[in-house]
Amino acid sequence: MPRIIESVPNLSEGRRPEVVAAAVDALRRTPGVRLLDVQSDKDHNRSVLTLVGDEAALKAAILALFEVATQKIDLRTHTGEHPRLGAVDVVPFIPIEGASMKDCVALARDVGAAVAERFGVPVFLYEEAASAGHRRNLEDVRRGQFEGLVEKMKDPAWAPDFGPPAPHPSAGAAVMGARMPLIAYNVNLGTSDVQVAKKIAKGIRHSSGGFRFVKAMGLLLEERGVAQVSINMTDFKKTPLFRVFETVKNEAERYGVSVVGSEIVGLVPSEALLDAAEHFLRLESFRPSQVLERKIREVE
Amino acid sequence: MPRIIESVPNLSEGRRPEVVAAAVDALRRTPGVRLLDVQSDKDHNRSVLTLVGDEAALKAAILALFEVATQKIDLRTHTGEHPRLGAVDVVPFIPIEGASMKDCVALARDVGAAVAERFGVPVFLYEEAASAGHRRNLEDVRRGQFEGLVEKMKDPAWAPDFGPPAPHPSAGAAVMGARMPLIAYNVNLGTSDVQVAKKIAKGIRHSSGGFRFVKAMGLLLEERGVAQVSINMTDFKKTPLFRVFETVKNEAERYGVSVVGSEIVGLVPSEALLDAAEHFLRLESFRPSQVLERKIREVE
Repeated sequence: MPRIIESVPNLSEGRRPEVVAAAVDALRRTPGVRLLDVQSDKDHNRSVLTLVGDEAALKAAILALFEVATQKIDLRTHTGEHPRLGAVDVVPFIPIEGASMKDCVALARDVGAAVAERFGVPVFLYEEAASAGHRRNLEDVRRGQFEGLVEKMKDPAWAPDFGPPAPHPSAGAAVMGARMPLIAYNVNLGTSDVQVAKKIAKGIRHSSGGFRFVKAMGLLLEERGVAQVSINMTDFKKTPLFRVFETVKNEAERYGVSVVGSEIVGLVPSEALLDAAEHFLRLESFRPSQVLERKIREVE
Repeated sequence: MPRIIESVPNLSEGRRPEVVAAAVDALRRTPGVRLLDVQSDKDHNRSVLTLVGDEAALKAAILALFEVATQKIDLRTHTGEHPRLGAVDVVPFIPIEGASMKDCVALARDVGAAVAERFGVPVFLYEEAASAGHRRNLEDVRRGQFEGLVEKMKDPAWAPDFGPPAPHPSAGAAVMGARMPLIAYNVNLGTSDVQVAKKIAKGIRHSSGGFRFVKAMGLLLEERGVAQVSINMTDFKKTPLFRVFETVKNEAERYGVSVVGSEIVGLVPSEALLDAAEHFLRLESFRPSQVLERKIREVE
């Protein structure tokens, strides 16, 4: 079975289309890479690129992306609402099929070392690839941003994992790591009372006592007059979609409110939905290789 | 997106391993074909081969299979419990991804014409490819078997769609067509009373007033002491898995019986399970291209 790893590099450029196009071209030209999505945001002055491939293809693609970014992006004149440390700001690697989290950690280290060596850009490892507990969270690594980086890196606790002990003058630093795929999942309630959504969100999210891999907030969809529990699932294998859905449904019932629907924003690994089917259909001894399309990939 | 069509040729040989191996080799050697499964049955003296590919690859594979079968199988000396008309007995084409039922009907006609021309084997079209209503059901086409074929083909109602008006002396005739994927699906009940399973099966199957694309019977799993509703789903797009499951669950409740689990036997198209996830999670405006693995195939 071909190994499928996803990478979602964040590029600190969302305003100059010719620079984004050059980055996209560099990725598209890399053999074995498939570019799934490109989202540019002018306010953030940032582009999020989604690509898949195996280790060798992704390594070549990320190096090609740094080639473009270090030439064309200068953080000293970069402004935008989104926090950032570098020209290529964050590069997560995500196991999808035939590859493990361990493989993705190894890939992050390998690509990080290569980027540091070739471009002189210091690299911090984060999430599953982090070299210390205080470096796991992206927010902590990025705190102080590009402008505070010279000072921050003087602290031994923030020595880079690879590369020089000070930021690249124009390209700053990069954050690389490995994590599970995120699923953006919203549950819509049969009420316009946002308080109900807020209470349910509080009940299911990790930070206030809920599920380990759930972030959630309650909000009101003004146009539809629908209160929504807006959820980020950070590890669907350990906290599955169906359990969160059922819990929201049960909590809503307690307020006499129904669940009118749910929605997945963006992409979702098939496994997250197959797990839901398996749960609700009460499937016994089901194997992923029974899925025809998966079986086809296995004999490739 | 690559076109994926499945074909499940049934070969009238399940006892001589060297003949089955020659057939398997012929399929494996065909470029663009992936052989997913081989099941031989000695009692039936029959092998069921499961392969996928696009139109050109499957056409080449089926022709290669006839080459082997017409050389090595002689129906005049063939015995076995399973009814059969020919050396390659039945060849269904099944749309999986990026191909429609219409494409599969066209493929059945194209391959049927080529087989008739190259090997002098008459071909009957069945199911969605049938040229007349009385020729849709495989059982009707096959009634009388190889031994009755000379007589049967004298009836103008049973003139072949392609090829000579009489059977090939040793290879008989072949039945080709297009159909939806079958899903073998069983629901296990929390009772050893087979009568409950039989009543539920009667309620859901088409032949006694149930769902249009469901065949079902009730039986007892002796070892587990579990009554089972054993189901064949003949079109999961029109009669979905989740509806059948929910109906069995509701009918069982009426007898005070619970559903302890369900099982899928063999392969299942991912769409059948994604439909179930979509139903139970009440997903709004979900698109198949949101499934990461599918999106990857779309940009191929």
